[in-house]
Amino acid sequence: MQTETVSVGLGARRYDIHIGAGLLDQAGALIAPFLPRPRAVIVTDEHVAEAQGPRLLEGLRAAGIEAETIALPPGEQTKSFAELEALTSRLLDLEVERNDLIIALGGGVIGDLVGFAASILRRGCRFAQIPTSLLAQVDSAVGGKTAINTPQGKNLIGAFYQPSIVIADIDVLNTLPPRHVAAGYAEILKYGLIGDAAFYDWLEENGAALLDGDAAARIHAVKVSCETKARVVVEDETERGARALLNLGHTFGHALEAAYGYSDRLLHGEGVAAGMGLAFDYAASTQMCAGADADRVKAHLRKVGLPADIQDLPEPENLNGEHLAQLMMQDKKVEQGALTLILPEKIGAAKICRDAPIASVRAFLTDKTRSGKA
Amino acid sequence: MQTETVSVGLGARRYDIHIGAGLLDQAGALIAPFLPRPRAVIVTDEHVAEAQGPRLLEGLRAAGIEAETIALPPGEQTKSFAELEALTSRLLDLEVERNDLIIALGGGVIGDLVGFAASILRRGCRFAQIPTSLLAQVDSAVGGKTAINTPQGKNLIGAFYQPSIVIADIDVLNTLPPRHVAAGYAEILKYGLIGDAAFYDWLEENGAALLDGDAAARIHAVKVSCETKARVVVEDETERGARALLNLGHTFGHALEAAYGYSDRLLHGEGVAAGMGLAFDYAASTQMCAGADADRVKAHLRKVGLPADIQDLPEPENLNGEHLAQLMMQDKKVEQGALTLILPEKIGAAKICRDAPIASVRAFLTDKTRSGKA
Repeated sequence: MQTETVSVGLGARRYDIHIGAGLLDQAGALIAPFLPRPRAVIVTDEHVAEAQGPRLLEGLRAAGIEAETIALPPGEQTKSFAELEALTSRLLDLEVERNDLIIALGGGVIGDLVGFAASILRRGCRFAQIPTSLLAQVDSAVGGKTAINTPQGKNLIGAFYQPSIVIADIDVLNTLPPRHVAAGYAEILKYGLIGDAAFYDWLEENGAALLDGDAAARIHAVKVSCETKARVVVEDETERGARALLNLGHTFGHALEAAYGYSDRLLHGEGVAAGMGLAFDYAASTQMCAGADADRVKAHLRKVGLPADIQDLPEPENLNGEHLAQLMMQDKKVEQGALTLILPEKIGAAKICRDAPIASVRAFLTDKTRSGKA
Repeated sequence: MQTETVSVGLGARRYDIHIGAGLLDQAGALIAPFLPRPRAVIVTDEHVAEAQGPRLLEGLRAAGIEAETIALPPGEQTKSFAELEALTSRLLDLEVERNDLIIALGGGVIGDLVGFAASILRRGCRFAQIPTSLLAQVDSAVGGKTAINTPQGKNLIGAFYQPSIVIADIDVLNTLPPRHVAAGYAEILKYGLIGDAAFYDWLEENGAALLDGDAAARIHAVKVSCETKARVVVEDETERGARALLNLGHTFGHALEAAYGYSDRLLHGEGVAAGMGLAFDYAASTQMCAGADADRVKAHLRKVGLPADIQDLPEPENLNGEHLAQLMMQDKKVEQGALTLILPEKIGAAKICRDAPIASVRAFLTDKTRSGKA
């Protein structure tokens, strides 16, 4: 099986994403060029430590690299100030220096926390992303957004900080529950929807095989996703403009996630899936996009087991449109009280709508949640 | 009196340092171009809030800018994880957005903490530095080093993050205790010693007037200091190379500060002064620089009331050379166990000595502390 490499061309901070099967076994060889001494620290969560830790340690040892492992509690609550302080303190106690490499082995939570910790430790240490969820491989591990959560909201404290290398071993996906793979698939679909109709067509054809475990399909989808993300990030690293397109489905989705208390009842990718369905329906309701496109996207989401609308969500009768609209207004992308929405024009083309009319969004969601009750 | 402007030419992140008398009164006009809406948040400490807050508020109001003030406890212990979390939480509660401007009004502690908070709030908000100590005006407010302290050491957690503007109003120095002005003067001298013999000569001539309150001398010295710092920062923003020259006297100085428990018994600038004296003496002891240069620098330090050697420090008989050498090895600039020292070749020229022989430094300090006891 081919190993693919996607470069994120950020000048002096350029780095490569390696995508393939069995890459954990080769991690030592891939990482060695970044090490001033044959030593690394792995930060992971307790579940991933058990599932993937031994293979990574063996892969490092094969290149003569010794590593300490720090295993944190799994789950979103680990992205906190308290865990950040504890982690940086452990790293300082281990005398991690500026040129040492910290390895983030895990899903989005670990990648976000460890990347942020690396960015502030001695004002910036190197780090490597080894994403172990499909969502992290195609989205959160690429592009340098790192963060923790606060009581005010998700990802409100963080940094734009790029890794030195990303290693996406698709073998690690084999131990994931199918529901989590499907959630990651939602972000893959997003890349087709915002700018690549041919890739969306390919996904309609090959999505089922990909979800079923087809390695070649997974490598291709991860590669195309990373290429698109890399292109957008190079154009707009700190999200002043076009990078916002990557938020298709996310503002609706974050409101849904908040409504479910960021619990396992709605995974992030599931929120994005339903959010994309809502964004298409909302765009169709304002004649920005064709109703047929919205129907086609929602049909595909449902076919792969993802929610596409309010009534696909758990206990939809408890959702309230007014409340969801309020939650949307708390999004990080709100500027001077105006709502920015990413809305589709058709499959393969989306645009950034600054100053979206909140009254119209509120009416749309009220209508949707009423139908959900029906 | 002339207002001077020094530009820090960091491309898209270029910014100006305004230096002059009475600038707080004009702060609104200077800051207005950076505000998307006529609103700002001032973060300061309780002492500075009392001494300078009303003038700044008035200066902002004159340009139609309303500001909230957050006043933190004064002192080094404010540069902590706990205060960072509390401050970012307050700023989120105030709904500070990415393009809003946070004003850091204070000395090095406030500038370091607020700059760091601004760098991580929503992954980066704008901030302005209004330094109110001489040390902050010539050093800490310029160049983008921000940080907090941890139990492992000072400034170990932070970011390189540049302000949008720096406003150095030399009038604010008039309310400072002379000892604090002298401590800031040590950093001014440093700029002469590392690269500008003519400026050092000027300081020998004009240092006393500057310390006495001569406004023209203060403006000139702050300007030359900021120019030198700006030049070094532009060349090496993240301290991979030449920026380390700015640490002349700092590795010895940090060890002294640690030995006094980072207390008011030895101010940072006093530690730097004694550290520069020690760096010259050590360089002279290894024939790197002439003993006459070391004597000349130490004589000037003492003339302006700064410590130049171990015996000038409080209770020198309690200092232990072995212990000081250990403290030096805990410096952030230690790499792979090797000590990096900035050492003078002569007045106006210093160099970065990586891999300084720790045994020789230890012997030097042991000798020095023995003489201190004598």
